[in-house]
Amino acid sequence: MIVILKENPDLKQLESFKSWVTEKGISIHESQGTTERILGLVGDTTQIDIDLISALDIVADVRRIQEPYKNANRKFHPNDSIIDVNGVKIGGGNMTLIAGPCSVESREQVCEIAEAVKKSGATLLRGGAFKPRTSPYSFQGLRAEGIEFLLEAKKATGLPIVTEIMDISQLDCFTDVDVIQIGARNMQNFELLRQIGRTNKPILLKRGLSATYEELLMSAEYIMAEGNNQVILCERGIRTFETYTRNTMDVAAVPALKKLSHLPVIVDPSHSGGRYDLVEPLSLAATAAGCDGLIIEVHNDPEHALCDGPQSLRPEAFDALAKKVSRVHAAVNA
Amino acid sequence: MIVILKENPDLKQLESFKSWVTEKGISIHESQGTTERILGLVGDTTQIDIDLISALDIVADVRRIQEPYKNANRKFHPNDSIIDVNGVKIGGGNMTLIAGPCSVESREQVCEIAEAVKKSGATLLRGGAFKPRTSPYSFQGLRAEGIEFLLEAKKATGLPIVTEIMDISQLDCFTDVDVIQIGARNMQNFELLRQIGRTNKPILLKRGLSATYEELLMSAEYIMAEGNNQVILCERGIRTFETYTRNTMDVAAVPALKKLSHLPVIVDPSHSGGRYDLVEPLSLAATAAGCDGLIIEVHNDPEHALCDGPQSLRPEAFDALAKKVSRVHAAVNA
Amino acid sequence: MIVILKENPDLKQLESFKSWVTEKGISIHESQGTTERILGLVGDTTQIDIDLISALDIVADVRRIQEPYKNANRKFHPNDSIIDVNGVKIGGGNMTLIAGPCSVESREQVCEIAEAVKKSGATLLRGGAFKPRTSPYSFQGLRAEGIEFLLEAKKATGLPIVTEIMDISQLDCFTDVDVIQIGARNMQNFELLRQIGRTNKPILLKRGLSATYEELLMSAEYIMAEGNNQVILCERGIRTFETYTRNTMDVAAVPALKKLSHLPVIVDPSHSGGRYDLVEPLSLAATAAGCDGLIIEVHNDPEHALCDGPQSLRPEAFDALAKKVSRVHAAVNA
Amino acid sequence: MIVILKENPDLKQLESFKSWVTEKGISIHESQGTTERILGLVGDTTQIDIDLISALDIVADVRRIQEPYKNANRKFHPNDSIIDVNGVKIGGGNMTLIAGPCSVESREQVCEIAEAVKKSGATLLRGGAFKPRTSPYSFQGLRAEGIEFLLEAKKATGLPIVTEIMDISQLDCFTDVDVIQIGARNMQNFELLRQIGRTNKPILLKRGLSATYEELLMSAEYIMAEGNNQVILCERGIRTFETYTRNTMDVAAVPALKKLSHLPVIVDPSHSGGRYDLVEPLSLAATAAGCDGLIIEVHNDPEHALCDGPQSLRPEAFDALAKKVSRVHAAVNA
Repeated sequence: MIVILKENPDLKQLESFKSWVTEKGISIHESQGTTERILGLVGDTTQIDIDLISALDIVADVRRIQEPYKNANRKFHPNDSIIDVNGVKIGGGNMTLIAGPCSVESREQVCEIAEAVKKSGATLLRGGAFKPRTSPYSFQGLRAEGIEFLLEAKKATGLPIVTEIMDISQLDCFTDVDVIQIGARNMQNFELLRQIGRTNKPILLKRGLSATYEELLMSAEYIMAEGNNQVILCERGIRTFETYTRNTMDVAAVPALKKLSHLPVIVDPSHSGGRYDLVEPLSLAATAAGCDGLIIEVHNDPEHALCDGPQSLRPEAFDALAKKVSRVHAAVNA
Repeated sequence: MIVILKENPDLKQLESFKSWVTEKGISIHESQGTTERILGLVGDTTQIDIDLISALDIVADVRRIQEPYKNANRKFHPNDSIIDVNGVKIGGGNMTLIAGPCSVESREQVCEIAEAVKKSGATLLRGGAFKPRTSPYSFQGLRAEGIEFLLEAKKATGLPIVTEIMDISQLDCFTDVDVIQIGARNMQNFELLRQIGRTNKPILLKRGLSATYEELLMSAEYIMAEGNNQVILCERGIRTFETYTRNTMDVAAVPALKKLSHLPVIVDPSHSGGRYDLVEPLSLAATAAGCDGLIIEVHNDPEHALCDGPQSLRPEAFDALAKKVSRVHAAVNA
Repeated sequence: MIVILKENPDLKQLESFKSWVTEKGISIHESQGTTERILGLVGDTTQIDIDLISALDIVADVRRIQEPYKNANRKFHPNDSIIDVNGVKIGGGNMTLIAGPCSVESREQVCEIAEAVKKSGATLLRGGAFKPRTSPYSFQGLRAEGIEFLLEAKKATGLPIVTEIMDISQLDCFTDVDVIQIGARNMQNFELLRQIGRTNKPILLKRGLSATYEELLMSAEYIMAEGNNQVILCERGIRTFETYTRNTMDVAAVPALKKLSHLPVIVDPSHSGGRYDLVEPLSLAATAAGCDGLIIEVHNDPEHALCDGPQSLRPEAFDALAKKVSRVHAAVNA
Repeated sequence: MIVILKENPDLKQLESFKSWVTEKGISIHESQGTTERILGLVGDTTQIDIDLISALDIVADVRRIQEPYKNANRKFHPNDSIIDVNGVKIGGGNMTLIAGPCSVESREQVCEIAEAVKKSGATLLRGGAFKPRTSPYSFQGLRAEGIEFLLEAKKATGLPIVTEIMDISQLDCFTDVDVIQIGARNMQNFELLRQIGRTNKPILLKRGLSATYEELLMSAEYIMAEGNNQVILCERGIRTFETYTRNTMDVAAVPALKKLSHLPVIVDPSHSGGRYDLVEPLSLAATAAGCDGLIIEVHNDPEHALCDGPQSLRPEAFDALAKKVSRVHAAVNA
């Protein structure tokens, strides 16, 4: 951490600041220029609150050099983390397909889709039971009943399930859920992150709509700081000025997050584009960029399509996509 | 709501869609152009899930004409809502100053600041007890103890208090809190909004870092849909590409939100700019734009300034600011 | 185009508006709801200035249905445009590699790089002669001399050359240049677009840092409206809140622009990421998403790397990349 | 400037870098931490191209401490610059109203508006002759003829005129124009900035739609580096995710730019909001924040409003606004 002092700083405050830093076991290297004076803080600065320092009267600016996350940082864990979900391995060179309906609607719907996506190569089943919706008047999901239907599909197909939690009070419903998803809008719901960090389940953590890589990794750090290291990062599109797509998939997030962190990185091409005709090109792009998996919306009932998102694929399209993904994955890793 | 059909839509699906709409008591006006065919849906379309319609195979595009919020909408409540907080009236031409420390640190600190800001004209006391922090390693606030200190300051000064809740499990601590704040990062924590909507306390709802006016109003609608109409909207700066300021205060939010909604609109100039030298100009700008109040960070202890944000004013600066705010408010309303 | 009228519009103004529209050969379909009244304007509405209509007192809102561009629109030109650059075909299923130095520095440098990238499969040579720089104190390029060096490399290798124009006064230097590039910061320099539209050279048009697809296509339309249809669109990353990468490559722009327009779409992975370690994953992602080509920075002189961008590859890395791109392109189109 | 080296840098490259820096008269202060090694570059670093340094293999990161602009920097010119436009002084505590039509349409229109706004206290006349339009099919302005009409209005009222140039080839038309405006889309048209810097006319430089303060000041620096110091900065709204307003006025730009630079800062509330009902609150907000002037669109012909923007005020509204602005300006400076 580099602290740039104001000109002619109050010397009493400066001494008091130096003592405070040194007491934390951090050493200080000073450098005096013609106009500016710089303190280099050397040691474990993740424990230092950068906002507190920048608030000091004597400080002109503060810059971090080290990343403020430890558990999620590849520097300290050079090897890829591999998350084991009931035998399905995520990360470490594996390419995992997660598929299922946007919203769970009925036992039949979810079981039928589960069978279909399993045949096409998906190894996890996704489905929304608790649904975050912008409007209180929109359908909020089947909630507990939705999770029951997912569990029946799991029993029928053997596919482990991934579904979203919106509040820790819902945790009881998640006893038999295999991967708990934290949605983009809850990425900085710090209380939820902390509490979920005390479970021993894999967590699929989605990037917030305007979050930076560092903020995503800090949210992973909240979970890991409580002892749960099974975090899967998920790029799902960020908000930009473009209105043709719902969000803008940041495909560079894949290699960047994998460089910064040892955690697996998957991509959600369905929400990223918000259009079914973009799911295939975005899936292939994410695969080519080196992602560890894809989470894709699939629906099965064109007659009652009212409850599927405009970004859902039909099973046939998903099957064709899975084959292409496999070819691209092989081409990149040849 | 206007639905633009694709060319040559499947007629069976079209009939099924029309029945579904008509069953909701909404009537349909058709318009046929040379290439496009348009359906105008007339009636209470707030109940219609626009995503479901845009997902239909037969639909090229859907546009809302009516706003998707009802309770928060000025169209249906032309008069300003005035929120009564223990006798302090917010909205309806009143100009309310809310002030206090960023973080509650001690009984003495908060009482001293409370006395000072009361003298300068503040009528509510703010202070952070539960603190949302990007890093799990940063100070997370005094939590329950912080609220106790605020309540002692309330007893000493008579100022009602405003403080942030981060999770509904903390609600027990808020029994004697006068206004519950929902922070920017929780603006779309829909479960929290719903649960807080079942209390009978005024809610100060902060705009999310990348939220639109409509999204903010939809979040207010979540609270109001549960029966709690005492919502105060708060502009606190949005994320932009500018790095000199922490956030960018969107001063147009004040007249825009007041036009769209009957709810009071206050502004947080401290977090908007993130720099103490911007608090005054931003406060005056917000006042001139017609806001109903300001929520400002004030600290009192330059020697131990470590725990105050870089955007905090000292009591003397707050006192000078309050006088200028009062002059500008008078000039605008002369 | 749909015009939503205000309640109780002034009838005289309404009649005057209707006549104005009808005189342009556009017919009007009216639809009357309970509260709103809607006019559907049917015909060639690209000629209508939407801002003028939204300014009318009687108008609540206006929405376009048709895209405001004609020449660039795939609806009116269903087949891919193929741009022929001295025998090199861009678009229509071809995959073109354009490579070369960020800045032209010397005859030797550019010739050496040209030879190298040609061997690896590049079919066009790029190089910056006129350099847009944020600071007036930064190196502004060799300008006319730089173009001479590019032309020598063209003579030596047979590779057609692509280089950027910054002002129409520089056009004389471009007589033997094969493709003229318009940089991101000039995407809405409308006078330059118009003037370049009067040349008969292929134009490589880069997307602006915060431009939408529609704005990019409208800028292409400026060129095409003057008679020059040889426009190549280029995604080069947009500005987002992420600071780890210089820009954020919007890979969805590839399929989206190719759906909206018949023009070829290439991608610049060097400027998109701004980091050499991202050039390969971004190139593969863009290829997998279906782009018609890549424009990549290559430098050759590690000892004097001072004048190469942090995003430049060495020839060996470019060679390896070209092979991978070829494999991914084959896998996607198998 | 602080250069953070990679671990175990190549020593030959390091020495070569150090010589290069030292030759520029800049001295180097080294600081060695446990893992990182830091070089502080001390001296006039505005001449150093930060991109070149960050491209070096041995460099992990580079951060500027000094601002990269000199002529525009308040540090080196502590007093406010006052721009004299034919006797009208802009900056230094003066509050200047600039008003006029969006587009010049006719001699009568512009003269009538000029008379009206002069009566209300405007001291400069604005009007668009060369109009930057997103679509080539939209009205592009009266161009040279429009400037003639402005000059006639100048003759009739004595008001100096401000109008936009889009390309240096238009300069001949600007001989009698008093202030040349550079539009937001041309803020980084560096050739135009350079050429306009060689004139001796005051330049009104608008902030680009996604530009930072530093980028705006670097564009001012381009003009000033050529010898023309008469630059007026103009905040005109930035692009954000909000769609209710056309742009988002960044009112903090006023105090921030005035702190960073000695140049006058004015605000365009018409384009910022894009709605006539926002012009007044945004004008008052900008005034309260300390701007040196406002540039406001006024139209005069409600019957033919087709060519006025939705953000134009009528003369009566402008007159009322001018009085309020005056009261707020007095209140802030009391």
